[in-house]
Formats: sequence, structure tokens, C-alpha cells
Amino acid sequence: MNANSDVQVSVLGLGAMGSALAGALVRGGYATTVWNRSPGKADELVAQGARAVAGAGDAVRAGDVVIVCLLDHASVREVLGPLEGELAGRSVVNVTTTSPEQSRELAAWAAGAGIAYLDGGIMAVPHMIGEPGASILYSGSGDVFDQYKPVLDLFGDSAYFGADAGLASLYDLALLAGMYVMFAGFLHGAAMVAPAGVKAGDFAARAAPWLSAMTGAFEGFAEVIDGGDYTVAGQQSLHFSDLGDLLAATSGQGISTEVVDMVQRLIRRQIDAGHGEEGFARIIESIRQQAD
Amino acid sequence: MNANSDVQVSVLGLGAMGSALAGALVRGGYATTVWNRSPGKADELVAQGARAVAGAGDAVRAGDVVIVCLLDHASVREVLGPLEGELAGRSVVNVTTTSPEQSRELAAWAAGAGIAYLDGGIMAVPHMIGEPGASILYSGSGDVFDQYKPVLDLFGDSAYFGADAGLASLYDLALLAGMYVMFAGFLHGAAMVAPAGVKAGDFAARAAPWLSAMTGAFEGFAEVIDGGDYTVAGQQSLHFSDLGDLLAATSGQGISTEVVDMVQRLIRRQIDAGHGEEGFARIIESIRQQAD
Repeated sequence: MNANSDVQVSVLGLGAMGSALAGALVRGGYATTVWNRSPGKADELVAQGARAVAGAGDAVRAGDVVIVCLLDHASVREVLGPLEGELAGRSVVNVTTTSPEQSRELAAWAAGAGIAYLDGGIMAVPHMIGEPGASILYSGSGDVFDQYKPVLDLFGDSAYFGADAGLASLYDLALLAGMYVMFAGFLHGAAMVAPAGVKAGDFAARAAPWLSAMTGAFEGFAEVIDGGDYTVAGQQSLHFSDLGDLLAATSGQGISTEVVDMVQRLIRRQIDAGHGEEGFARIIESIRQQAD
Repeated sequence: MNANSDVQVSVLGLGAMGSALAGALVRGGYATTVWNRSPGKADELVAQGARAVAGAGDAVRAGDVVIVCLLDHASVREVLGPLEGELAGRSVVNVTTTSPEQSRELAAWAAGAGIAYLDGGIMAVPHMIGEPGASILYSGSGDVFDQYKPVLDLFGDSAYFGADAGLASLYDLALLAGMYVMFAGFLHGAAMVAPAGVKAGDFAARAAPWLSAMTGAFEGFAEVIDGGDYTVAGQQSLHFSDLGDLLAATSGQGISTEVVDMVQRLIRRQIDAGHGEEGFARIIESIRQQAD
């Protein structure tokens, strides 16, 4: 017996992330049932107090709330589809990486089958689960979120975005896009200084606090965007932001300009359209226009 | 008289940044002489205790160390060129934004004229000068850096990169590249969630801490790059990093894919060359190769 034994939690999928989630549940004092398609993944969790079962149906029947962390959307359909009957009346929290459309499709399927469905996007790597800095975005059933928030909070900071089950995935992908693009920017910088004998480690030690500090500019960009007026005073203009010097220095180092070219194209399209005196945030208008 | 009156400092150029530097010197107790090409920029500084002079030569003659913060490289040549005689034997700290080649050219000119030359790149906006978070990168004369470090430290954290006068500019541009690319990544994310009704401000509030936290990955990428072995265990593979789903979700939102396409191209070139199982940091090899 333990403090939280009144809620039964099941976890489907024991890859690195699923195992991390199940571990957090066991440590949090919840009766945790785990299942994985291929055997042998549960041993460590069982040693910690989880109960492993041989069939996904057994896991579903054991759980008031079923956490689903499988490979992809197809795996979720394959595992949950045949269990519609067992899932009816239960709550599913699906944190499998899926597209917004796939999340919405699963939500529609769940609604038809009487299953309460919450979709989640995990903004963390497995070893961060349950640690400061991990955050998980949810959308879909607000009831599931409210009822099981103490469970979800074991994984990290839990944020609910609304009833549209696709929104958490969309938000997740938007944040991942920012991350991958930032990584490319960092690696571009490291490639620029490398020919001058600067180690990537030395550049990283300076780039990490610099870029971290520069995230402070997002709020100002956002204010301008939400305000809908790119001419408000106090902004760095697009003319001033022209990256010609930066591109010349990049070429001078004998490396590819394509990372910075991407930003320069967004800037140039706005300047060419006559907006050179307006603020940098206006490049979002270049992004909003789908290419011809 | 004040504690630091034994060092005479002059500032050439009173734009927003030059004025901020001069203000920090005055507040730091230094005898500060200021000059600007067009008049009227010095009034506030004079009220604080600076001395304004009408000619750049007057300012040079008044200073043991001359801080140069002009519009661009051409302005620096134009102002300093005729003052070679007055500058001989003095120290110049040029924080005007210049390319690495331009900095090296100025250093060569200074060496020929008997002027000690230190080049600087300011990683801050004017209102950050003298506040936590401002950092200024220097390269060129190590003697000037050592002798005037207490002066330079008034502006922000001072870092010296070596005798190559172009290195500070190069480092500066590499960090700026990272910043602009990160900004594009943030704006891409904001554009992705906007059609779902998410305000840019709400996205910024989540993207800023997220990307700030993700700068923590730079050190690991750098270790792999400096180690020269992209196959070391524990890395996210390039296959896993394929951004196909992210691009599909981007198109699904009806916006341009070009920001993320840039990263995907870097990834694909390494996968196509047979390195799909190696770590994400390997995309620096795509950047290192100048496009055909």
C-alpha cells in the first residue's frame, strides 16, 4: 500500500521514454502496470515495484489511466485499435510523437469509442523526466488533464493548451523546429571560427550563454507581432539587419553560406516589398507566405 | 580629481553605443574626452562630467587610450587616417563593427604607424553596457588589453582571444550568426502555431525558456566535434533527426518550409553520404563544405 494506490496507472511502451515515465510513476508511489511488445524491457521497473503484464489488454484493464508511449502513430492504432472495448470508459494519455492531424484522428476515434483522450508532447529527453526543466504539453480532454494532473506532474511541468487534441503536437513541433534551427545556427558559428583555430568547445562555452541571453528578445518580437504594427519605434530595422557582411565573412572562412542565406532571404523579401525601415520581427511575414 | 584620473580616455563617435561606452567611463571615474562628427551628441555626457572637444585630433591628443566607435570601417579610416602622427605611441581600442579582414587591415596600418591596436566586438545592445550580461570580445594587442583591462571591464565582461586582430570580429559575427538563425527558428515556430490561434506572446513565453535550456546541448555537440568521432555512443542519430514530420506539419499549417528545409538539407547530405547512424553534430560537416 502507498499514498497514491487509489489511482491505477498503466504504461504501454517501454522504450527509453516510456521506461522513464513508468519509473517516475513507481517512484511517485503509484500502482503501475507496464507492458511492452518485446519482452525484457520491464525487468528494472519490476525490480522497482512495477507490475509487468504480457498483453496490452491486461495493462489496459489494470489502469484507470493508460499512458501510451509507442514508436509512432501506426503503433498506437495497431495496439489500441483492438482494445476499443476495454478502453471504453477509461482515460488515455497518448505521449507518442504524432503529427497534429494524427493526434486529432486519434481523438476522433477515441470520442467515437467512449474513451477520454488527452494528447501530450514531451519537451524533454528521457533522463530529464521528473527533473527540473522537463515540460510536457497537453491538449484534448480537459477532464483527463484535471483529474490526473498529480500523475502527470510527476513527469515534469504540465501545461494544458485546450480541447483541440492536435494543439499539443503542433506546439511540440513548433518548439522542436526552433531547437533544430538554433542548433544549425550554433554549428554554423562553430564552423565559422574553426578555421581560425577555435575549438568547438570554446565556442560552445560562449555561444550557450549568449544565445540563452538573446532568447530575451523573443518577447519584444512577439509584442510587435501580436500588436500587428511592424513600424513601432525602438526596433532594429530590416535594413540594419541585412546580413551581407556576415555572409561575406562566412564565405571568407571557406564554408557554406546556406544557414545564414536562409535568414537573409526572409529579410530581403520584406525589404524588396518596401518594408526595410520596419522591425526585424516582420520576417515572420516571409515565413507566413507559402513559397510559390 | 578622482580615483582613476591617472588614465585619460577618449571616445570617438557618440552614436547610441559610443555614448553608452563614454557614459560607463564617466561613471567609472575616468577623465573622459568625447568627440562626435556632428555636434550636439555630447551634451548629456558633458553634464555627467565628460569633456567634449570639437576635433577628433583634440580627442586623440587628450587620451592615453582612444576608444573608437564609429559607423563602419570606412569611417574609421577616414577619421584615424589623417591622425597617424597624433596616434603614434598611443593605444587604440576599435569597437566599430568591422569584418575580420577589415580589422586585420586596420591592425596592419596601426603597426606601421607605431599605434598599439586592439580590436573589439561588442556582444550587447547599448543599454546593456556596464550591466550584467554585456560581454566584449577583444583581439590584437595583448599589451593594450592587459594595460587597460580595468577600463574595458567597465563596459562588460572582457575576453581576449589572441594577437590576430580579426579574431574578435570573427567570433562576434559567428555569435551574431547563431543569434539571427535562432531568431528565424523562433519566428518559424510562432508562425506554425499562429493559425491555431496561439498568440506570439504565448509562444515566446514557452520558447524562450525552452531554447535557453536547449543551449545546454551545445557542449555535447562540441565534444563530439572536437573529438573528431561522430560515431561515439549516446548521440541522437541523423536518421532519428530526419525532419520529414516537422516539414509535413509546417506545410499543413500553410506556411513556408524554408526555415526548416535549411536544417533538413544539412541532415540529408550527411545521410546521403552514408552517415545516417552517426550523431546530429555531424551536420557541421555539411556546413564546412562550401556549396558547389
